[in-house]
Amino acid sequence: MTAVFEHRRLVAFSETDSAGIVHFAQLFRYMEDAEHAFFRSLGLSVHTTGDDGSFRGFPRVHASADFLAPLRFEDEVLVRVFVSSLGRSSVRWRFEVLRCEGDLLCARGETVTVCTERATGGAAMKSVPLPDRLASAVAEHAASEARP
Amino acid sequence: MTAVFEHRRLVAFSETDSAGIVHFAQLFRYMEDAEHAFFRSLGLSVHTTGDDGSFRGFPRVHASADFLAPLRFEDEVLVRVFVSSLGRSSVRWRFEVLRCEGDLLCARGETVTVCTERATGGAAMKSVPLPDRLASAVAEHAASEARP
Amino acid sequence: MTAVFEHRRLVAFSETDSAGIVHFAQLFRYMEDAEHAFFRSLGLSVHTTGDDGSFRGFPRVHASADFLAPLRFEDEVLVRVFVSSLGRSSVRWRFEVLRCEGDLLCARGETVTVCTERATGGAAMKSVPLPDRLASAVAEHAASEARP
Amino acid sequence: MTAVFEHRRLVAFSETDSAGIVHFAQLFRYMEDAEHAFFRSLGLSVHTTGDDGSFRGFPRVHASADFLAPLRFEDEVLVRVFVSSLGRSSVRWRFEVLRCEGDLLCARGETVTVCTERATGGAAMKSVPLPDRLASAVAEHAASEARP
Repeated sequence: MTAVFEHRRLVAFSETDSAGIVHFAQLFRYMEDAEHAFFRSLGLSVHTTGDDGSFRGFPRVHASADFLAPLRFEDEVLVRVFVSSLGRSSVRWRFEVLRCEGDLLCARGETVTVCTERATGGAAMKSVPLPDRLASAVAEHAASEARP
Repeated sequence: MTAVFEHRRLVAFSETDSAGIVHFAQLFRYMEDAEHAFFRSLGLSVHTTGDDGSFRGFPRVHASADFLAPLRFEDEVLVRVFVSSLGRSSVRWRFEVLRCEGDLLCARGETVTVCTERATGGAAMKSVPLPDRLASAVAEHAASEARP
Repeated sequence: MTAVFEHRRLVAFSETDSAGIVHFAQLFRYMEDAEHAFFRSLGLSVHTTGDDGSFRGFPRVHASADFLAPLRFEDEVLVRVFVSSLGRSSVRWRFEVLRCEGDLLCARGETVTVCTERATGGAAMKSVPLPDRLASAVAEHAASEARP
Repeated sequence: MTAVFEHRRLVAFSETDSAGIVHFAQLFRYMEDAEHAFFRSLGLSVHTTGDDGSFRGFPRVHASADFLAPLRFEDEVLVRVFVSSLGRSSVRWRFEVLRCEGDLLCARGETVTVCTERATGGAAMKSVPLPDRLASAVAEHAASEARP
């Protein structure tokens, strides 16, 4: 399976810790940033506010990762984004975080995000259907994968 | 001059960087957290939302610091908060960040915050007078300082 | 089962994001900080450097969490630490992150850490047995749980 | 005066706070990252470890900023890097942080960094002369500025 999206970045100094490596919690930000970049590539944003003050977001209800090898300051990083499954309002993402040098797999991760809306003046968030553009992009990618 | 407030904390691992010390940008968070703790000690919050959706905050318009000595993982830290001057809507703060062990001064800082409000449904922030409770606490402290 | 350790903290402003809640990656720092505080309560540190330049740490090889409810600025937070299992060099931790107000469970998490050493001048980390003090503290807690 | 270097980035979601804008301490990371990118453009790194275990870094002894306008999630950001003055071992940097849309100046900053070395096995850092490559790049840029 090929990634539905790929995102590159460089390890910043402030992302490292006293052990000389990227702090594990930072890896979750790498995955989140890649997911957001995928949205932008579709002309979408994960965080939008309507003119009427309504708000749509994609909060995470689950995140997990296995850490296989360390990343260090100024390493070039590639984050591969996969969509494991789509529900009515939720997406199950899978990620691979690689050090570009040596094509070294450093972390594997998974998150579940839920498309959520808050009406104007309201406090409660409720789940809403995924944007059509996201569902169709994932379907197109799956179809291209299936071709011989 | 004695501090108007003191705030203690412990250096967390994720606050350190590859040089084995607390990252300099984190020191600004230490100062901000101490300022916020001072507000709480007065029964105030730096970030409040009214029932009508209005919002009051204290954004920083200036921040500076001199870094004198490093802090490391698990160091106990004391942040001393001073008020240099009060305007109608702004506060000029001064901070000293010390390592408790050896009473070592590690950083001196200064910030300027402005009391700001956004009306319901509005986008623009405008400066508003400081809360009375803050002004009176600072005046009380100054008076106690002046006593022989 | 009762927690082997409990750790309290307050949500800092810089830990929140544009959605008005604590950013999910920050929750992993809350769990890590609680684990480190447990180590300190035993007179241990997760990150020690020997006089000979050797280094012992507890890197994470796995981390996961389910996010159930949001935390906001100035919420008081309780992190409950559990030990699911101890290997020769690894610990499987379980965490509950609660908002103190209303005793609301906001996140459940799990991490696996491995006790690791790097010899003087060496680059490679190798796993080493857990500190006795940790194993005995966990055994004592389990025994106290088993008592009628 | 033109910038000696320019660095572009996009505001990540995790860099924003509950006020809906990039947290002020994050702006200092933007400036630091731009400085590091300038070093890389010269074939240098701000953080290097010798084969003999010696270490050279550029810790900050001063940082300040004025915050003029907010940055928000997914804003494109341009950081302009200027060198105000070069000492034997220190650099005084100046920065402008702009929102690309509207070419809006959002922050002005200044930092002072000191080239520092720690010998193998030593604990103390001492200041050492700046790398020739840095001094010559700054001189070349100044000369090109001076040309009519």
